[in-house]
Amino acid sequence: MLEAFGQEAVCQAMLEFEGALAQAQAAEGIIPAKAAEEICRLCHVESFDVAAVVAASGRAGSLAMPLVKQLTERVAQRDPEAARYVHWGSTSQDVVDTAMVLATRRALVLIDRDLDALVDHLFALYARHGQAPVLARTLMQPAQIVSLGFKLAAWTAPLVRARTRIQVAAQAALQLQLGGAVGTLAAMGDRGAAVVARVADELDLRVPQAAWHAQRDEWLTLGTQVGVLCGSLGKVARDLSLMAQGEIGELSEPSGGGRGGSSAMPHKRNPVSSMIALAAAERVPHRVAALLGAMTQEHERGLGNWQAELAEWAGLFISTHGALKALAEASRELEVDEGRMRINIERLRGLVCAEALSMRLALTLGKAKAHHCVEAWSQAVVREQRHLRDVAADALRADPALAPLLGPPELEALFDADAAARPAVSAAQRQMEALQAARAASVTKHARDSDQHAPQ
Amino acid sequence: MLEAFGQEAVCQAMLEFEGALAQAQAAEGIIPAKAAEEICRLCHVESFDVAAVVAASGRAGSLAMPLVKQLTERVAQRDPEAARYVHWGSTSQDVVDTAMVLATRRALVLIDRDLDALVDHLFALYARHGQAPVLARTLMQPAQIVSLGFKLAAWTAPLVRARTRIQVAAQAALQLQLGGAVGTLAAMGDRGAAVVARVADELDLRVPQAAWHAQRDEWLTLGTQVGVLCGSLGKVARDLSLMAQGEIGELSEPSGGGRGGSSAMPHKRNPVSSMIALAAAERVPHRVAALLGAMTQEHERGLGNWQAELAEWAGLFISTHGALKALAEASRELEVDEGRMRINIERLRGLVCAEALSMRLALTLGKAKAHHCVEAWSQAVVREQRHLRDVAADALRADPALAPLLGPPELEALFDADAAARPAVSAAQRQMEALQAARAASVTKHARDSDQHAPQ
Amino acid sequence: MLEAFGQEAVCQAMLEFEGALAQAQAAEGIIPAKAAEEICRLCHVESFDVAAVVAASGRAGSLAMPLVKQLTERVAQRDPEAARYVHWGSTSQDVVDTAMVLATRRALVLIDRDLDALVDHLFALYARHGQAPVLARTLMQPAQIVSLGFKLAAWTAPLVRARTRIQVAAQAALQLQLGGAVGTLAAMGDRGAAVVARVADELDLRVPQAAWHAQRDEWLTLGTQVGVLCGSLGKVARDLSLMAQGEIGELSEPSGGGRGGSSAMPHKRNPVSSMIALAAAERVPHRVAALLGAMTQEHERGLGNWQAELAEWAGLFISTHGALKALAEASRELEVDEGRMRINIERLRGLVCAEALSMRLALTLGKAKAHHCVEAWSQAVVREQRHLRDVAADALRADPALAPLLGPPELEALFDADAAARPAVSAAQRQMEALQAARAASVTKHARDSDQHAPQ
Amino acid sequence: MLEAFGQEAVCQAMLEFEGALAQAQAAEGIIPAKAAEEICRLCHVESFDVAAVVAASGRAGSLAMPLVKQLTERVAQRDPEAARYVHWGSTSQDVVDTAMVLATRRALVLIDRDLDALVDHLFALYARHGQAPVLARTLMQPAQIVSLGFKLAAWTAPLVRARTRIQVAAQAALQLQLGGAVGTLAAMGDRGAAVVARVADELDLRVPQAAWHAQRDEWLTLGTQVGVLCGSLGKVARDLSLMAQGEIGELSEPSGGGRGGSSAMPHKRNPVSSMIALAAAERVPHRVAALLGAMTQEHERGLGNWQAELAEWAGLFISTHGALKALAEASRELEVDEGRMRINIERLRGLVCAEALSMRLALTLGKAKAHHCVEAWSQAVVREQRHLRDVAADALRADPALAPLLGPPELEALFDADAAARPAVSAAQRQMEALQAARAASVTKHARDSDQHAPQ
Repeated sequence: MLEAFGQEAVCQAMLEFEGALAQAQAAEGIIPAKAAEEICRLCHVESFDVAAVVAASGRAGSLAMPLVKQLTERVAQRDPEAARYVHWGSTSQDVVDTAMVLATRRALVLIDRDLDALVDHLFALYARHGQAPVLARTLMQPAQIVSLGFKLAAWTAPLVRARTRIQVAAQAALQLQLGGAVGTLAAMGDRGAAVVARVADELDLRVPQAAWHAQRDEWLTLGTQVGVLCGSLGKVARDLSLMAQGEIGELSEPSGGGRGGSSAMPHKRNPVSSMIALAAAERVPHRVAALLGAMTQEHERGLGNWQAELAEWAGLFISTHGALKALAEASRELEVDEGRMRINIERLRGLVCAEALSMRLALTLGKAKAHHCVEAWSQAVVREQRHLRDVAADALRADPALAPLLGPPELEALFDADAAARPAVSAAQRQMEALQAARAASVTKHARDSDQHAPQ
Repeated sequence: MLEAFGQEAVCQAMLEFEGALAQAQAAEGIIPAKAAEEICRLCHVESFDVAAVVAASGRAGSLAMPLVKQLTERVAQRDPEAARYVHWGSTSQDVVDTAMVLATRRALVLIDRDLDALVDHLFALYARHGQAPVLARTLMQPAQIVSLGFKLAAWTAPLVRARTRIQVAAQAALQLQLGGAVGTLAAMGDRGAAVVARVADELDLRVPQAAWHAQRDEWLTLGTQVGVLCGSLGKVARDLSLMAQGEIGELSEPSGGGRGGSSAMPHKRNPVSSMIALAAAERVPHRVAALLGAMTQEHERGLGNWQAELAEWAGLFISTHGALKALAEASRELEVDEGRMRINIERLRGLVCAEALSMRLALTLGKAKAHHCVEAWSQAVVREQRHLRDVAADALRADPALAPLLGPPELEALFDADAAARPAVSAAQRQMEALQAARAASVTKHARDSDQHAPQ
Repeated sequence: MLEAFGQEAVCQAMLEFEGALAQAQAAEGIIPAKAAEEICRLCHVESFDVAAVVAASGRAGSLAMPLVKQLTERVAQRDPEAARYVHWGSTSQDVVDTAMVLATRRALVLIDRDLDALVDHLFALYARHGQAPVLARTLMQPAQIVSLGFKLAAWTAPLVRARTRIQVAAQAALQLQLGGAVGTLAAMGDRGAAVVARVADELDLRVPQAAWHAQRDEWLTLGTQVGVLCGSLGKVARDLSLMAQGEIGELSEPSGGGRGGSSAMPHKRNPVSSMIALAAAERVPHRVAALLGAMTQEHERGLGNWQAELAEWAGLFISTHGALKALAEASRELEVDEGRMRINIERLRGLVCAEALSMRLALTLGKAKAHHCVEAWSQAVVREQRHLRDVAADALRADPALAPLLGPPELEALFDADAAARPAVSAAQRQMEALQAARAASVTKHARDSDQHAPQ
Repeated sequence: MLEAFGQEAVCQAMLEFEGALAQAQAAEGIIPAKAAEEICRLCHVESFDVAAVVAASGRAGSLAMPLVKQLTERVAQRDPEAARYVHWGSTSQDVVDTAMVLATRRALVLIDRDLDALVDHLFALYARHGQAPVLARTLMQPAQIVSLGFKLAAWTAPLVRARTRIQVAAQAALQLQLGGAVGTLAAMGDRGAAVVARVADELDLRVPQAAWHAQRDEWLTLGTQVGVLCGSLGKVARDLSLMAQGEIGELSEPSGGGRGGSSAMPHKRNPVSSMIALAAAERVPHRVAALLGAMTQEHERGLGNWQAELAEWAGLFISTHGALKALAEASRELEVDEGRMRINIERLRGLVCAEALSMRLALTLGKAKAHHCVEAWSQAVVREQRHLRDVAADALRADPALAPLLGPPELEALFDADAAARPAVSAAQRQMEALQAARAASVTKHARDSDQHAPQ
């Protein structure tokens, strides 16, 4: 991903644009065919001094001018006549925006693949451990019993949807930028539209409704969707890191191979993938904010805001993809300790079944009174370090009014972890099946398009 | 809009949820029909002490618990039996999220209407002043001549697209929240799904694939789209404020009626609508970032992040709608000074036609040489305070090699503002027609749904 | 705190400014003494229609113009002559900024008091539980043994320093704003400086070096310091919420009195104070970013950015103070379970002492070899569910080369929690003593100034 | 600046830390003197494979572990015994944080120098053009007449203050990080404090009150001050870019040398320095927000947040310094067109003197009536395209009640630009003198410290 937005790759994409532009203009009779040929021949980054282009870009304001200058010089060495037609009628933003579109298309292929892999791994974990009872936790307190599959479904669904949303957004955003000085292609006379069509065709990009030099909404919509994806990845990492705490130990990231050892504490197994994803989720919202803030562009091309947008864009993708790759890696060999999940449930002495008990009693006692009973018993559980089942059994036995409400076997059943997890198991199954179906549909449809734009 | 998210409105929406929940549970035989009836009878905000609910929410952590408590007490006064069934099997987040969905649906109707109005006004301005030549400016420098319609199209397109994108996002986001303690509706046994279907139907909300207590991606996608809209509004306001500068004076916001006078400078006409929209565009990206940052929610319900999301959500809508309303108002009676547009062009002494001149000469001289010539002439324009046309005419006349390249009438034509604006006129017409078509399609489709959810 | 920045309070502060201005101008002979008297007589918010001022502020762009209009009308009713001199030579930003300064001064008194209270409670916790051994955790994994006091010192130090930094920043930021239309006080002739001095004296504010209409750095520095404080509060809340997890149970927030019950799970004790502080810490960085973003103000008064700054400022203080108050409340009666701290250490079977063991062995074996040994033993601990002490003892016994390195009593001592906590106890003591000293100095110095600006 | 935070420089700083640590531990008898010697001998980045360290850091979570591994291997090649003592008793965060402190110290020297240069250039501009009348503008509308010096003072003051504030913040923030695994230096027994003192002395860093692994407030305070500086730079760039608009033309950035040409419009002189500074000011607030958001670090070392902080830190400095350098460059040869300033005043036909006229009339007519008169005349100015002076003269002549209020010479004087600028000239002089004094004091004091830490 670092390569997708690397200077080399962006310069190469810029040269692809320049080559395609020259060809299209030759085909439309705007520039001589021979000039286009000469220009295209030189549009390969290998023969460019990328470092010099980058160094000059500081003063020039973007990569475009120094690159075009180098290209013109190179063409001039072979054919001074042809050199006149380099970058003809175009503007810096045309070439830079289009290069960013091409780089982004490659980046999206990587995101799509790793998102697919991560979802695959989550489905595999679901298949293996989906039924296992585990604590649900709300406000960072143990709440009730669910299944691990229920948690996996809550992780998976936003990722499956993100994939679709990003594909939709990309369809609108991956379009050619070509408007010339102020967006009208005035220098190309009445052949502007035809040139746009040809260049878009050559680069396999959508023909835009108009130059989008300062209409950034479609581009930004793609950016915000990548941001939403990163938020969903952060949620996975947050849960994973919490469940991997030494005192909880329900999940652990795979170790070995240079991952996550501690230089000072030899026994620690640091959740390095979660760390990477959490760092990304911490940073990416600010990338999105910067992009949105940069939308207030002045007139036909902004001063500073377009440049800020450019600079923030790559970071958004690199961070998000870093999070994605880290979690795809962690989830492939994630260790699930079903035993610890049951121990953690047991250690709460039945308190997580208090709602079930309360609801059951409420059927007869009414909600308020039932709540009140169970609250008192729960305090006894904490005070006397006993199991709620036992406290409740004693209380029921002791009170002739309550005793008939709930027999011992029914009471016992209320505290069975597998039984308690059943509603979660069903809910997860419904959602995972729906996701699987949506996925099947979307994946098929998308496969063709994305493959051809994979980075080499 | 302030009302849509006001405490009164949110409490009312919460009560609608509680009423619908009781009814659905009665229909499914979970609670007695009579209890549901009693509960519904009291689910009207008028009889509640909203201020007390708000005051208690600080310590309780959300509005839900104090409101449910008040509702329970009120029901109990009439029917202690029925009071047992208030909020049965539900959780705070169910009622609060659903209330926010209902409030957001009303907010979106307002946004949709004002967005429509703003676009209407922009089309009207286009009809009246679309052909008028005006300076295009890039990097805050005059660049070339375009038409005002070209600028209007660049303002309008992102707004038309925003409307569609928001409608699509809303379709996914406006769904019922109902999952109970941890999202499994465990307390409702096997009738959970049926209850969800009934409540959703009653509130006219989409049935979610699963409780989305911690699956915030669809909700956030709507939020980010509102953020993108605000960015596009900021762009309009930025341009408007720049063109309204006293020294430029091409556009002015309407005055009168308490708008934008200055207490110290009686002659000033402050662009108050732009100010409001710019302030919103300055603030809203941070709202979006906060929402994205809050996605990293722990387990089945986050600690602090869900609360942060709630608190930021309304601000996002209020700011964006404020910007929208201000610009809709300003654009309805926006004053366009076509004369000043021409004067501003004239004052640049033809320099904005330099590219056209350069391109024209490049056909014969090659780009580099043409650029060089025009650069020298442009410097003479500045130095000698003359018009580029005259400098060029002299230079052409003086150099026998150049003279035949460009005759006086052709030279003159290069500096004709209306002619120079022609490519922009065409480009704008293409885009505005496409937008009109898209609009017609989308508006029709959307009209029915939104009207029924308009705030009273 | 909500009141400090409430519309009533801000309007009252604005009226204080207007009154002080009139008096100062009278004293300097700019306006008649009788006019000043009449104006001052009416500068009390009780007689104003604050709601009408707020309603009109939307179109006018700020509260200033409608309030000044109301004031002028009221004065005119009694003395039309005097009404001429209301707000004389001043501008909206003068009165609004100064009112915000006055409101902020009151807000800072509240922050200072609650910060003091929170630090008091942390010192009290330190006195009661400072020596208790507890797990240190890094990267969310148990690491070594420290004392609770060590954690308390890490919470306390940034708070003590924040207090001092905020006081220093406030000294620069709490200054009068009075510059007239563009900051030069041109309308007051050569008596501008004298009027500024008088008004500053009357309102007990610093005389600024110049009007700071667009020099926002000192104001923003105060804002960022409040942001840094909120970050430090978020750190406390994060730790608290992690240590309060049901499975860890080392700390719990006090319960009762409407705090943190769960509507669905009667036994839960939700960490509501942590929740409030975490939500604040989630939101406040975005407030600070918005304020910094708004610094790019145009010319002598910005369009939109000053308004954005105004709107974000109060939220920064309200959120931060909410976090502070919540934590002050939680820390006053924070429950510390020293037993659970020891149990959590024990449950890790000596692994947290692995570094100590490794370092001890490294003295003879060298670091690499020692690390290698301890790593192997640690794996045995996990695999065989035994205590590292026992695994190590067996291994030492079994290997004649290792046996003499470490005798059983020395080995035993390496795993004594109290002994292991000793370096932390010393470190904490050093820091807490230094903080106590710094505090004593700073508190004394500050007491006088702040008391007189306490909100009534 | 890119170099200051480059991988090479950071690795070198890490090695300086490791060398100083070994030496200090040898001096305290913790490790053999010979081992320290061997370690120090190899602590030079030239012999390291920095690219390999960086590549491995992804999986390891930071640069520390792979660098320490390389160092250990290198030492082991020469002296396996010494290799045991590399990084002894320290932790990754110690070496990374300290390296960031060292890099930041070098960065601050650059910032300090360029800030000084920029302020120098602003003072030079003040000396040359300080008296020139120019339009003050509020809400992006011409308001009154001030002097260019008044604007320069408003740019300069926040920069002079920023320098002092950054120096103060740096004094607290530039401290050694050395706490070992969890911050207690447990592995160094009772010699921890002595080792800290020696390492701090060797690296010329402040001895911290305690390890600040999770006490980030002092570090962040420095970061926020850099953020405030960037906001002040953004304000300068905003003004500059507005005054450099072709239609206004009061200021222009220097051209030539590859700066700011436009590829499509040969005559344009793009304000490239402003562009760079505005892009930085657009981005930096989000860097600060990310840093503040990362403060909520878990326990003794955070998971993800510390890493996010690290990643954002360099960007904050690089952007801010880029802005600073660009403006220092632009201001050195900034072109000031005093003639255009006067023309822009003239073109407003006296309307900017309306307040002065209004205030003058108000002395006799009262404010409301005066305001009313001037408003009417101002409308005539716009309607009839005449000068306010002439409109007013006619009106005064025509109304026998008004005529005596203001004689022709006094009326004329109200419209004299130089006279109108006088209050601004005085205000600017006062502030610039105060700044010069503050600067002289601060610069002297700081000179020694910073020079010795200049990057080579």
